Amino acid sequence: MDSSFAYLFKGLDEGRMAKIRAIGKEIAVKAGQQIFREGQEANGVYIVRQGSVELLTLIEKEIELPISILREPGDTFGTSALVPPYRYSLSARCVEEGTLFCMETSAVRKLAAEDHDIGCRIMTNLAAHFLERLKETRQEVKIHFKTLLMTTRS
Amino acid sequence: MDSSFAYLFKGLDEGRMAKIRAIGKEIAVKAGQQIFREGQEANGVYIVRQGSVELLTLIEKEIELPISILREPGDTFGTSALVPPYRYSLSARCVEEGTLFCMETSAVRKLAAEDHDIGCRIMTNLAAHFLERLKETRQEVKIHFKTLLMTTRS
Repeated sequence: MDSSFAYLFKGLDEGRMAKIRAIGKEIAVKAGQQIFREGQEANGVYIVRQGSVELLTLIEKEIELPISILREPGDTFGTSALVPPYRYSLSARCVEEGTLFCMETSAVRKLAAEDHDIGCRIMTNLAAHFLERLKETRQEVKIHFKTLLMTTRS
Repeated sequence: MDSSFAYLFKGLDEGRMAKIRAIGKEIAVKAGQQIFREGQEANGVYIVRQGSVELLTLIEKEIELPISILREPGDTFGTSALVPPYRYSLSARCVEEGTLFCMETSAVRKLAAEDHDIGCRIMTNLAAHFLERLKETRQEVKIHFKTLLMTTRS
């Protein structure tokens, strides 16, 4: 696992990556396994090593809307564990069995407090990532709006 | 201007707020004035002191979708100037004449490099803010999706 492994660690040197590795553990996940649910207190950040994970949001009782599927090693999820209000904003479910690298939020925060460069770098990478997702989601809203415009015109 | 002034500076003490004030300037804006356009290279971060500003996104040629209106002193915009790829993700236009506090991106970056605590704090606040906006925008997508579901069912 090097710094190119996951966007969250972009810019961290090997010494700091060793500290990251030291606070996490690998966990095995099975197809269909619920990793966490939207709204739950967020205790861990996850990185795909092998297999695939689907992120979903609850539309109404028992109807979930798929948001994205993560299948590349290094794909990261559960990052809302790193910012207030520390609750998962989506649900995560394993699609294809595999291995995840999991870091407990408390360990990440402790490491960030001890080594400000790590904390600062992770937060910068996280801000850039959320902005990217925000732009993508705005694109979806635009598409819905355009469809509406066309319906009104026709 | 204190640290409660804008979410971006939450957690900064008075000494650091003085440094923030020192790198910015107040500018007067008139109703209808375009402050920046979506896609442009982002050179400044803005905070509303007085008046109001509308954020918009281009749907198609000459059709803009309003995203939000900022009218509270402390409301902040143009923050995509602080993260790669350093381009405005929305357009900003003055609605009601007033005063903005403007910080040049280069000055913010210089200050963040000199005082890591400032940089770290701003990035943490920014990540939390983008996540909030992301959740709100996902809610809009959900509403569109629900409407679609209801149309299909009826």
